[in-house]
Amino acid sequence: MNVYRYEENPLITPADVRPLHENFEVIGAFNAAVTELDGEVIMLLRVAERPIMEEPNMVKVPWIDVESGKLTVHAIDTRDSRYDLRDPRVVQERGKSTWSYLTSISYLRIARSKDGRHFDIDDGAFLYPSGNLEIFGVEDPRITAIDGAYYITYSAISPAGVGVGLAVTRDFRSVERMGMIFPPENKDVVLFPERVGGTYYALHRPVPKGVGGPEIWIAESQDLRHWGNHRHLLPLRPGQWDSTRIGAGAPPIKTPSGWLELYHGADERNRYCMGAILLDLNDPTKLLARAEQPILVPEADYERVGFFGDVVFSCGALVSRDIVKLYYGVSDTSMACAELRLSEILGALTYL
Amino acid sequence: MNVYRYEENPLITPADVRPLHENFEVIGAFNAAVTELDGEVIMLLRVAERPIMEEPNMVKVPWIDVESGKLTVHAIDTRDSRYDLRDPRVVQERGKSTWSYLTSISYLRIARSKDGRHFDIDDGAFLYPSGNLEIFGVEDPRITAIDGAYYITYSAISPAGVGVGLAVTRDFRSVERMGMIFPPENKDVVLFPERVGGTYYALHRPVPKGVGGPEIWIAESQDLRHWGNHRHLLPLRPGQWDSTRIGAGAPPIKTPSGWLELYHGADERNRYCMGAILLDLNDPTKLLARAEQPILVPEADYERVGFFGDVVFSCGALVSRDIVKLYYGVSDTSMACAELRLSEILGALTYL
Repeated sequence: MNVYRYEENPLITPADVRPLHENFEVIGAFNAAVTELDGEVIMLLRVAERPIMEEPNMVKVPWIDVESGKLTVHAIDTRDSRYDLRDPRVVQERGKSTWSYLTSISYLRIARSKDGRHFDIDDGAFLYPSGNLEIFGVEDPRITAIDGAYYITYSAISPAGVGVGLAVTRDFRSVERMGMIFPPENKDVVLFPERVGGTYYALHRPVPKGVGGPEIWIAESQDLRHWGNHRHLLPLRPGQWDSTRIGAGAPPIKTPSGWLELYHGADERNRYCMGAILLDLNDPTKLLARAEQPILVPEADYERVGFFGDVVFSCGALVSRDIVKLYYGVSDTSMACAELRLSEILGALTYL
Repeated sequence: MNVYRYEENPLITPADVRPLHENFEVIGAFNAAVTELDGEVIMLLRVAERPIMEEPNMVKVPWIDVESGKLTVHAIDTRDSRYDLRDPRVVQERGKSTWSYLTSISYLRIARSKDGRHFDIDDGAFLYPSGNLEIFGVEDPRITAIDGAYYITYSAISPAGVGVGLAVTRDFRSVERMGMIFPPENKDVVLFPERVGGTYYALHRPVPKGVGGPEIWIAESQDLRHWGNHRHLLPLRPGQWDSTRIGAGAPPIKTPSGWLELYHGADERNRYCMGAILLDLNDPTKLLARAEQPILVPEADYERVGFFGDVVFSCGALVSRDIVKLYYGVSDTSMACAELRLSEILGALTYL
């Protein structure tokens, strides 16, 4: 696969983003959705901010208080044996099977560009956590333009679980929430850009606690707000690069051969790559083809090293004739872009 | 709480049900949905059958082969150290966090009664597992009558996860599937019997793998097939009888005070009891009241001892004026019924 990484990469880093919160620092500007509007490339960044650590043996954990809507910070002594702090992203209480706090809070913020390489970042948040389902933040958006409106799906994180919220904008100035469309545990939801046979489709990625894995499912809707007829679509591949976790990345790309979905996959070592599948143009619940090898793997320095290294994670692409401009988060830290040939991706698919 | 258990309890036991499959035995006839039609009480039983064990050191695990639609049995040597067989319900592979096989396969079967105490059991299955989302069976149905149709929600079990299917019947002779309405991991879905403010509601119980617990959520629909606007409704109560797992039981009961939901809760010792909450009549996303103590606890022999003991688990109730006839599964084995006073349940609620 020929991959042309922009010379300007990384396009946006945490240093480019002024924190919204006093005594916080930006540690991530990554996993952005991307679209075009009025001649501009718009990235909807996930910005992660964390409290500045002044004391050596303290970790501070932030969340939004539901009653007041205010950002709240709690300090945890790193020597306190009740806590496990080995994963830099979370604070875990020993004896519990999952984390209790995140070490940063994420919200969505807009970056704008004329050339797709140089971006200016809006001052405020575009979508800030709100209500009891977003106490720990909002993350990893995707944008799908449908009939002149831009629909945004995003991860909503709270003590009740990780679900997927829907919001809509027409101008990337104001935004309206449409509720949680996939309940916990779910992430990585992309909407198809048009009805297929009269029906809207979405790819989603549930994470069952019991039997079943973090695999890709497909669901149907008539109004984008309500979803049903869930079907299992794409399994993990034991022993391969996408063996432990997969999820839809960019919203599906319509091609004459079918719907092309660029998805992420991780292996046992938590290396995240991007791969490709093809779905039937008239029935996207039918998997036609899957690429054996990833189309993008972490190779550049900025993809190998960061807050959580060895990660390329795309939430959106711009397609112009045979060029796929794949925007992607790197190392849970920054944003990058690479161009690939659509025809080459399609040529790499193995039909089932 | 005054509880009148029927003298005929248990009303149906596995011995009353002829197995559908050759060389299988019925080990459970339990967790039945209940409704009334043409002067009959209809129970939709979960019937669990398992392969008869002829050899002492073998466990046989059944599933439905997707291609052929045929029941398939695989034998596992109990001395094989790769497997953990301590839970009688499942076969677990060591080193995996969840089960790989069930030791029985469940399907839905009808029992009919004139008096609600003596039941005749239909010969065949009413809803038999079908397709790749029901490979390991269908379980724990609920029935809600809406506008002359009977909607059935049930757990669909497969290697891809445990989700919730919807089906509809008008006569309890034929049935039509309407797809999976809640993707994995989810169970314990009850539909409200009418629109509230123009909207259908359902209670559901996701099980997130990461943050969040097996708690009760509420969702909205316009057509019963597609669901959205998911909201968190009812938390676990650490240290109490409903500390580890809760889920909706009987479909919500309309009372002048609000929607009464009789739900199940389990504690650290896996004792399942039934409890009660009250939701706002005009906005069921609002929790008005919750009973501190359970309304039904395992006390009778048949509730204490069985395939999985110390369990009372209701999937449906019939209400006649002030009498709640609570049908419930006992010890994952049989069916029982107890009468409680509606007024007494409502009187036991603590308003928030």
